[in-house]
Amino acid sequence: MKWKRSERLVDMTQHLLERPHRLIPLTYFASLYDSAKSSISEDLTIVSETLEARGKGYLLTVPGAAGGVKYIPKLGTAEIHEIAEELKQRMSQSDRLLPGGYLYMTDLLGDPELMNRIGKVFASVYADQKIDAIMTVATKGIPISHAIARHLNVPVIVVRRDSKVTEGPTVSINYVSGSARRIQTMVLSKRSMEKGKRVLLTDDFMKVGGTMNGMKSLLAEFDGILAGVAVLIEAEHTAEVLVEEYVSLLKLKEVDERQGTIVLENGNYFEKGGNET
Amino acid sequence: MKWKRSERLVDMTQHLLERPHRLIPLTYFASLYDSAKSSISEDLTIVSETLEARGKGYLLTVPGAAGGVKYIPKLGTAEIHEIAEELKQRMSQSDRLLPGGYLYMTDLLGDPELMNRIGKVFASVYADQKIDAIMTVATKGIPISHAIARHLNVPVIVVRRDSKVTEGPTVSINYVSGSARRIQTMVLSKRSMEKGKRVLLTDDFMKVGGTMNGMKSLLAEFDGILAGVAVLIEAEHTAEVLVEEYVSLLKLKEVDERQGTIVLENGNYFEKGGNET
Repeated sequence: MKWKRSERLVDMTQHLLERPHRLIPLTYFASLYDSAKSSISEDLTIVSETLEARGKGYLLTVPGAAGGVKYIPKLGTAEIHEIAEELKQRMSQSDRLLPGGYLYMTDLLGDPELMNRIGKVFASVYADQKIDAIMTVATKGIPISHAIARHLNVPVIVVRRDSKVTEGPTVSINYVSGSARRIQTMVLSKRSMEKGKRVLLTDDFMKVGGTMNGMKSLLAEFDGILAGVAVLIEAEHTAEVLVEEYVSLLKLKEVDERQGTIVLENGNYFEKGGNET
Repeated sequence: MKWKRSERLVDMTQHLLERPHRLIPLTYFASLYDSAKSSISEDLTIVSETLEARGKGYLLTVPGAAGGVKYIPKLGTAEIHEIAEELKQRMSQSDRLLPGGYLYMTDLLGDPELMNRIGKVFASVYADQKIDAIMTVATKGIPISHAIARHLNVPVIVVRRDSKVTEGPTVSINYVSGSARRIQTMVLSKRSMEKGKRVLLTDDFMKVGGTMNGMKSLLAEFDGILAGVAVLIEAEHTAEVLVEEYVSLLKLKEVDERQGTIVLENGNYFEKGGNET
């Protein structure tokens, strides 16, 4: 069956969007739609230009015999600001305050649409870098890491606090938690990562960066390379942060338990020329 | 700016696919593209027919003043079989065998593309039912539950084994784990769920269903309604399963530690007339 252009455009869009950062040979589309490669190229130009105009990313064309096309998700500034604003508003609701100045954010981490949007923000930040895997610590970091991984098309590696029989042989390290200065343990299955991989560390929250630093030590055990650190919300801190380079979407400025106020501002993403994306 | 049909089709497809099960008013598209509602309706017919022809779901039109259009992901049989087949092959690699007959599957749970596809399978199964939330137990159930939730557009509720300060007040229950017959505890934040919600329970693995049964008890504490039970892989078991109605994608038939063989077959999804989807 020969497909009409309108049908090809719909199908190509869904096919490419479902497979970010994956190379699709033009011959795949040409044979699927029984169309000439030149028509496919024209279609792809329309798809790419429309996605770009709407701030959703673009199609990267890889020339040559082994070539093809890849969808690279890259959100426009306006949408990234909008996402940060939404998160800021939802995070500063005073009923999130828990005793001890902790904030309840489990509902946000369980919101798949919000997580998906946040995943796209960080996938946009690291869109042009070589990332082989995303590492996080169980439990709260998992939704964000999966959301980012989905848009970068790389695996997620989950570090645990305890070793489980279903993980097989593990490597464990001790580290000093940043704020409480307690010795803690992190465990990672030996077969979860090959040597020499470029890994992006992620978490929902970072104070002094103790957990991130722990992941860095664990990464070193696997001869891994630190490709970046992505944090949803960083806390205001007096001590120096233990990780040098990180990207945060929001910064928690102040929590006043008595007044019931939570003050957030933009994270360092917006300082780093993120607004020129 | 007036948009061409080709551009509208690309943009509508991306917009709808990013927001499954969410009602989008036609006026949204009409004003965004500066087009007549009749043109938008024609566009939507093309989008819906193409998605349906490719087994990706369809657009549901809701008439009336408060109406609009929703994308309902619903995979065709061929793709569901293909996904089950891929999982079967990857799961039966003999190097997954761990001492005690356990199987290593952490890498699969960390594969965002596989999780996304599996999420669509279960979202297809429950596409026409009212689901308010998806519940799972930390840690291994989280990727699957988020993948399903993403395609049903409902929140994820994560039950924990221990209570954490960032969860606020919690409700806890004791339950008997199915296989080891040990008393275990499950904890859920009080504010994680309102009363009377219809909840889909999910997990990566189910043997006799002890964990699922624990979640059922916890659900009862929140006056929740059991909307279904979705299991990626169920194990062959001699005892009776503790949950009555569940849908599994694969069934683990046999694990032979000495021979190094793992035998899987299709889960009960394929018996339940799933092949008529």
